[in-house]
Amino acid sequence: MERSIAPRKGRLVFGEFRKIVEEGFERYLAPNHDCPARLRESMRYSVEAGGKRLRPVMVLLACEACGGNPTDAIPAAVAIEFIHTYSLIHDDLPAMDNDDLRRGRPTNHKQFDEATAILAGDGLLTLAFEILTRDIKNADVAVACVLDLASAAGVDGMVGGQMADLQGEIAEMADASQDGGTVDPESGQTGADEQCEQTGKVLQLEAIHLRKTGRLLRSALTMGGRIAKADKNTVEMLDHFGKCVGLAFQIADDLLDITGDEAKMGKGVRKDAELGKLTYPGLLGLEESRRRATSLIDEACRSIEPLGDRGLRLEALARFVLERDH
Amino acid sequence: MERSIAPRKGRLVFGEFRKIVEEGFERYLAPNHDCPARLRESMRYSVEAGGKRLRPVMVLLACEACGGNPTDAIPAAVAIEFIHTYSLIHDDLPAMDNDDLRRGRPTNHKQFDEATAILAGDGLLTLAFEILTRDIKNADVAVACVLDLASAAGVDGMVGGQMADLQGEIAEMADASQDGGTVDPESGQTGADEQCEQTGKVLQLEAIHLRKTGRLLRSALTMGGRIAKADKNTVEMLDHFGKCVGLAFQIADDLLDITGDEAKMGKGVRKDAELGKLTYPGLLGLEESRRRATSLIDEACRSIEPLGDRGLRLEALARFVLERDH
Repeated sequence: MERSIAPRKGRLVFGEFRKIVEEGFERYLAPNHDCPARLRESMRYSVEAGGKRLRPVMVLLACEACGGNPTDAIPAAVAIEFIHTYSLIHDDLPAMDNDDLRRGRPTNHKQFDEATAILAGDGLLTLAFEILTRDIKNADVAVACVLDLASAAGVDGMVGGQMADLQGEIAEMADASQDGGTVDPESGQTGADEQCEQTGKVLQLEAIHLRKTGRLLRSALTMGGRIAKADKNTVEMLDHFGKCVGLAFQIADDLLDITGDEAKMGKGVRKDAELGKLTYPGLLGLEESRRRATSLIDEACRSIEPLGDRGLRLEALARFVLERDH
Repeated sequence: MERSIAPRKGRLVFGEFRKIVEEGFERYLAPNHDCPARLRESMRYSVEAGGKRLRPVMVLLACEACGGNPTDAIPAAVAIEFIHTYSLIHDDLPAMDNDDLRRGRPTNHKQFDEATAILAGDGLLTLAFEILTRDIKNADVAVACVLDLASAAGVDGMVGGQMADLQGEIAEMADASQDGGTVDPESGQTGADEQCEQTGKVLQLEAIHLRKTGRLLRSALTMGGRIAKADKNTVEMLDHFGKCVGLAFQIADDLLDITGDEAKMGKGVRKDAELGKLTYPGLLGLEESRRRATSLIDEACRSIEPLGDRGLRLEALARFVLERDH
């Protein structure tokens, strides 16, 4: 009974928790004497641009699911969103992805200028670690959170993933696929003897996404668990949940690029195909991609069953990843 | 007796300690599976470009001066140099200071490309916090070090200072000085009724440098003290030492820009005047600037007298700041 109403409960809490973390952003970006006004404005501009706040809300939900007080997780929630935001600001720069629009508004370097955008990113990244160590009162927990977040965001994680992406690892895979192994996204048809090659490519694609977006999402879950003083097994369980949800999220993103509504997305769609990027639908077809995402979310939800009812809101958020339309 | 041979001892240790921290850099930038090779090369390129290693050596010396084992301070020493290096990589970018040369070699974005340079900077910054939390074994000390370093490097410190500099605060001050208050650097002549205005400008110039370079240097000292489990008063004493040395270092830098040898410096000299930047010699004249730097170093050394003989090597390093020719 309780279980069946979880999505509704989840959605409700999602909005409440989003409000809590957004109030946190404001507090941490309030004017102060030493930060130049334009720099602060630039950081606020990108942080306040919105987005789903998936990562910070996951921090609070993971903390709650482990019996902790979600309020204690606000510093970690703010820190992870600041790191996510910095990565978007730097990724949008002309030397990187060269994007003019983000969530329907000019990107940071378009609204301000490149130097300000670089420094706003540097500032948000650094502020994340300042917040964790200033406001998480238990030193062991603070250390574990900084380590989770820094290793997820760093050269072995997100920064390394962005570098690999820029170096064209995904594009190269797409080129190599011209000879076979990919399918028509609409029909999903592929030859039987190409299935093995395809599996290898899916694994490769997954490996890149695990670094570029997956590691950071996982750290949202593990930080939430650590703040609730969860034991090692529970933190590992949350980590696995985050890994599955992260991959499903990426597949959903690839699907939205094909089927999504530009107005709702606040950014251009069907860009992946134009850029010749390898995507899950490109490799597996639409239907199989949807099946795979669903099966990953099922795996995620199964993995946190030991949390019992306390895990229901996390489950609901995982399901939302599949249902979202932007 | 002991006191009079300090500079010689200091110089010896400086070289030894530099070697220790440079071995640390290598260890932390060793190849691993997850970091793309080009990204790691780019980070190594800038870290290995050399420099005086003033900040990391100060971490070790401060630790030693407080009775700690300098080896314990290696993670913090590596972390602060990585942050210093990231700031140089980003400052050199075309959108920022647009420099082609750094320490006699092409800047990172010239040697690699802009995207790689941005990511190498992001990677080094993030790695610094990973190192502190992975390898400082005492959690309270690790938290204090992350907080020292992040607040020194962030928007209220180094990043904010760079923003203020880019926004032309220093240049504006120089413009405003056209009417009076500045002196001919060679003669040091100025009118008596302009002295008050001059004092105000020196304080303003100091305020910018305290943010842009001073805060980071101070965190080298406080981290070293914290690792040695120094008490609060001692950490504050080290902080004041760092503040004085940082300002003297900046004055020495301004002086070297006028009197320095381009080959030894590994970068263009007399750029400040060309760029119309306000400098200490421009405000105070050469002689008064030298006097001011000497008096700051004297104040620094007096402030750590309570450390007794254990502080002699720190003193020697402070004196080196004045004597250096590059």
